[in-house]
Amino acid sequence: MNAEIISIGTELLLGHILNTNTAFLSQKLAESGIDVYNTSVVGDNPRRLVESLKEALNRSDIVITTGGLGPTVDDITIETLSKFIGKVRIKWIKNRVGTAPGLVIDHEGKVIICLPGPPRELNPMFEDDILPYLSSAPLRVRYAVDNHESWTLKTRTIKITGLAESQVNKVVKDLLELKPPTTVGIYAKLGEVDLKIMSKAKNEKIALGAIRKIEKKISARLKGYIFGYDDDTLESAVGELLISKKKTIAVAESCTGGLLSGRMTDVSESSKYFTIGIVAYSNLVKVARLGVDEKVLMKFGAVSKEVACQMASGIRILAGTDIGIGITGIAGPTGGTRNKPVGLVYIAFDMKDQAPFVREFRFKGSREEVKFQATQAALDLIRRNV
Amino acid sequence: MNAEIISIGTELLLGHILNTNTAFLSQKLAESGIDVYNTSVVGDNPRRLVESLKEALNRSDIVITTGGLGPTVDDITIETLSKFIGKVRIKWIKNRVGTAPGLVIDHEGKVIICLPGPPRELNPMFEDDILPYLSSAPLRVRYAVDNHESWTLKTRTIKITGLAESQVNKVVKDLLELKPPTTVGIYAKLGEVDLKIMSKAKNEKIALGAIRKIEKKISARLKGYIFGYDDDTLESAVGELLISKKKTIAVAESCTGGLLSGRMTDVSESSKYFTIGIVAYSNLVKVARLGVDEKVLMKFGAVSKEVACQMASGIRILAGTDIGIGITGIAGPTGGTRNKPVGLVYIAFDMKDQAPFVREFRFKGSREEVKFQATQAALDLIRRNV
Repeated sequence: MNAEIISIGTELLLGHILNTNTAFLSQKLAESGIDVYNTSVVGDNPRRLVESLKEALNRSDIVITTGGLGPTVDDITIETLSKFIGKVRIKWIKNRVGTAPGLVIDHEGKVIICLPGPPRELNPMFEDDILPYLSSAPLRVRYAVDNHESWTLKTRTIKITGLAESQVNKVVKDLLELKPPTTVGIYAKLGEVDLKIMSKAKNEKIALGAIRKIEKKISARLKGYIFGYDDDTLESAVGELLISKKKTIAVAESCTGGLLSGRMTDVSESSKYFTIGIVAYSNLVKVARLGVDEKVLMKFGAVSKEVACQMASGIRILAGTDIGIGITGIAGPTGGTRNKPVGLVYIAFDMKDQAPFVREFRFKGSREEVKFQATQAALDLIRRNV
Repeated sequence: MNAEIISIGTELLLGHILNTNTAFLSQKLAESGIDVYNTSVVGDNPRRLVESLKEALNRSDIVITTGGLGPTVDDITIETLSKFIGKVRIKWIKNRVGTAPGLVIDHEGKVIICLPGPPRELNPMFEDDILPYLSSAPLRVRYAVDNHESWTLKTRTIKITGLAESQVNKVVKDLLELKPPTTVGIYAKLGEVDLKIMSKAKNEKIALGAIRKIEKKISARLKGYIFGYDDDTLESAVGELLISKKKTIAVAESCTGGLLSGRMTDVSESSKYFTIGIVAYSNLVKVARLGVDEKVLMKFGAVSKEVACQMASGIRILAGTDIGIGITGIAGPTGGTRNKPVGLVYIAFDMKDQAPFVREFRFKGSREEVKFQATQAALDLIRRNV
């Protein structure tokens, strides 16, 4: 059984919005063992929509359209479809979040499914109504053939930080060259590299077994750099660690402007370990609130190892926590000098009854990218030292 | 002249990565007056790539492919193309950032352009080499026809907050129904609605004139709700306002966990007005650091008008700024009660020599969505009252 996705909307063709619906549907279909070989986008133009529908019905069992179901003049899907397929039995799918219902149409042995465009309407409709339908026995029987197509797909994502993509690549090169049914892909994000193991097999057990074998190899090779799996985030992994070690934490941020506090408190049990975050943007705040020594500040500058250390100790004492983190740096795009360029960030870690220490980083990228990488490095520092 | 984009890559079909290349290329092509009517994605499969190429060459003047140019087994573009088109004159395009070069192929009166997949390689190659080529006289002459196709496209985005999409829709309904060459589109984001005016005309002057006329109408109807234009963000608009009014600000956040500080300090001149942000997650911090009255806290609870107000006043006095903001609420997904459900947020505004006031909000959505909407409401509160 295979499916194809047609996204309808001129705003997509103009590049004004990102096509997240196609990514969402593709993922869900792949997980259900339904192959997707083509996806496409057409504007709000009936003639071109009909052309795309014809091509899609020619080569795919299931055609899913997104968008164009609303009541405005731009919404052409239903009118175009009814002209194209004539009078057929339509099954309407209730929209619990928005107004425009979805539809399922049986057309000459193929199935056309029309979903609303807004992701918050599309996502629950697809998961609650369409996926169970696509997994139903009659449909599986209609299209099932004795090959990989009806197999199940399982995936496992291994999340790595502290290494560049090229470094990870070197270590797992042989695994990246594996051929189906079990393959490994590498995906580089900002301050993170993901390895995704995918396995297609007759049943779940075989697929998971194949994944486990490769996961073991990867774990052995990249041990300390792996912070989590699948839906884990670095902040959730750090949170679990803090809870299990019964440690509390407070952070003092300068260049990251609250992003570290924000990421740490995104974790829903964070009130168990996170007590206070201070965004100390001005030198005055660093001195008056965090107890940074004014002479040290003057001598070494706000962006220095010494100030980062005093910020970490200052916030730990102020908050009465086990751990204090201090971050100071130059996020850019302006403010850099020859000795202290944009991207220079100092992160200090101060734990009760231990000597504080500080690390120097030189990040590349835009202001937002420098800020994010600094929080990534800070979280990794906590993960490795708590 | 029209173009079509084919993205090549199984990882796109599996939904593992978002197709940002297509959005980028679509935008740039639209701005250059080149129409895009179709975009599609195919996997790393030579047969299906050839099918897609045939369809695309059938209906479009220019076919742009992205991805599949590298040296690994997955990279099928060049081999597939050379089989498909035979021996032709290929123009290689140097890749200044990565290794795989791009190519331009003249094929039976059509043009095939192949670009590398990684955005940081594709973007400069497209802007530096391909766009000038697409704008060159011979190509324009070859495809130019006496219609809209060779016209220039100008856009203007008007950014609105504090109204729902349906409310904005009602006010500008007649404008949304305008027909080309000048149209208005409506795009709903979280806590923001954008109106995008697009005008296609023989030259820039005419297009901008048409846009200005419609912009005036929209401004008159939505005045107080418009916070910016094009690349403006709500935080940058608030920043400009604070600088022009010479006011300083400090914020005390509970449920938003540093996100407001983070957004405010994303603005590159923010050190001029933003002095300190405190993420007060625990009650202890609210009492000990912000001077919230313990009795008030006990009587009304941490999520209350009273505590929001005391947080705003507390941070203003502590920081010695003109304005203090206090935010407390329940971001969810847990922690809600019947009287204080998830999504309930109080935002207080305290300005020197004025009576502080507080607003109650009830946001819908996930934890991240509630947090973001709360910061959006806080920024709008500052914008309207500074």
